[in-house]
Amino acid sequence: MEFYLDCYACFVRQTINAARHAGCDDPVQHKIMIKVLELLQNLDPETTPPHVAKAVHGIIREYSNNPDPYKEAKARCTRAAMELYDDLKAMVAASDDPLGTALRLAIAGNIIDLGVSDEHEDLWHTVDRVLAQDYAVDDEGLLRREMEKADHILYLGDNAGETVFDRVLIETMEKPVVYAVRGRPVLNDAIMEDAIAAGLDKVATLIDNGADAPGTILSLCKPEFVEAFNEAPVIIAKGQGNYETLNNAGPKVFCLLQIKCPVIERDMGAPMGGIILRQSTAL
Amino acid sequence: MEFYLDCYACFVRQTINAARHAGCDDPVQHKIMIKVLELLQNLDPETTPPHVAKAVHGIIREYSNNPDPYKEAKARCTRAAMELYDDLKAMVAASDDPLGTALRLAIAGNIIDLGVSDEHEDLWHTVDRVLAQDYAVDDEGLLRREMEKADHILYLGDNAGETVFDRVLIETMEKPVVYAVRGRPVLNDAIMEDAIAAGLDKVATLIDNGADAPGTILSLCKPEFVEAFNEAPVIIAKGQGNYETLNNAGPKVFCLLQIKCPVIERDMGAPMGGIILRQSTAL
Repeated sequence: MEFYLDCYACFVRQTINAARHAGCDDPVQHKIMIKVLELLQNLDPETTPPHVAKAVHGIIREYSNNPDPYKEAKARCTRAAMELYDDLKAMVAASDDPLGTALRLAIAGNIIDLGVSDEHEDLWHTVDRVLAQDYAVDDEGLLRREMEKADHILYLGDNAGETVFDRVLIETMEKPVVYAVRGRPVLNDAIMEDAIAAGLDKVATLIDNGADAPGTILSLCKPEFVEAFNEAPVIIAKGQGNYETLNNAGPKVFCLLQIKCPVIERDMGAPMGGIILRQSTAL
Repeated sequence: MEFYLDCYACFVRQTINAARHAGCDDPVQHKIMIKVLELLQNLDPETTPPHVAKAVHGIIREYSNNPDPYKEAKARCTRAAMELYDDLKAMVAASDDPLGTALRLAIAGNIIDLGVSDEHEDLWHTVDRVLAQDYAVDDEGLLRREMEKADHILYLGDNAGETVFDRVLIETMEKPVVYAVRGRPVLNDAIMEDAIAAGLDKVATLIDNGADAPGTILSLCKPEFVEAFNEAPVIIAKGQGNYETLNNAGPKVFCLLQIKCPVIERDMGAPMGGIILRQSTAL
């Protein structure tokens, strides 16, 4: 997805939030801001928001001397989501349509996104809302058909905490799953340790993509990941960053997310809070 | 007032809004954005938000080829405020404390601010709110005492439309008033034609300050204005831009405004929507 004009203001806002989150004092925050303004002035026309986020959060890690500023926040999000795990499982077990319910729960988990805001709605409230609302984009039928035929599924994770909701979906799918995390810390995106804290190692083969972008930029990923990507018959891509980088990665990719920013709202023609299960378009 | 870190994101947001308001197409909006990012990267450490706003809106006027992008919006705001004029006058006339009521009404009018948002609360709703709430900063007693001694008052205007509320206050003050507008168009700040449309020429001597900053930057104002400023025994400075440039311009300056941004909220230690009548501190 392209970098829209409105993304500039969002990244400047996100820079300050993230620099404060990383514990930088005012002079360091100022230095980071100047670096980010320079970066934003010189964007490649082909850039996507996750390309820019990768660079911005790289600057913040460098200037804060903090290799993983969101480490504690991620652990907190995972713990909060784990407290819901038994209830989520019971909800799926009691459902007439366990897979449909688990898909919606996985989308509900996408509300956890510290790039958009430090706060998220009460998770349980989000679960209730997402279970009750209609899909804004609904390719669920297509995904079910593709999943049935597939010998395994590649599942691209997004944020720490959201991982627990992914786990519930994976446990419902009854297919071998390869679960991919980011290769290195960026924002509150799940890396290997976050996936393990959510118990995903018990239900999927874990790999990392080798990159530190909050999305999936194939040209930056390691060869083993790209191979897994190319060979996978079906790919579930969670969250906004994966949508922004894989929205036209071909019809085997299905993006699951909530609409959490006005740019995606306009890009999709669907409202804020809308739930999306969208097959990607051809390359 | 200093340029805070949070001001960066606000100016980037304001740039897009203003460029769209000026009717620029996407490529021109993009050019404007790059220029503004360059500007923000190279700020003088002594700068104030109105210094930056002056430069930003100068870029927008230049690239849009539109010498007064807010001309129609200003006329619309003035007409909307003029529709309330008779009711505002009646409210003052019926009050036990006409001057106190007129001061509050003038502050209510400060809700009209297209730099903060294209929308403002229903004006009449704001009037009701401001009449009912306590001052967050209350130097009204000091202002009354200074006004009583003064042979005239210099009144620094702010936005078009707000001018009508200023007129009601001026008509209540029973002192000769010199009313100063901006020297050239910037944002929706009142210039001479806007003041005349609000009927201020009937109740005050109108002057312009010769500058195009949305505030009062004395070093950029014309000599006649600076002389009027220096000779005035009491100065009423309306709005956020005048506060940001005159908050420490000495005790004869009284700033009247509403708190409409989180930076001022923190700077003042008073809540959003708070009403302020504050004597400036010593130079």
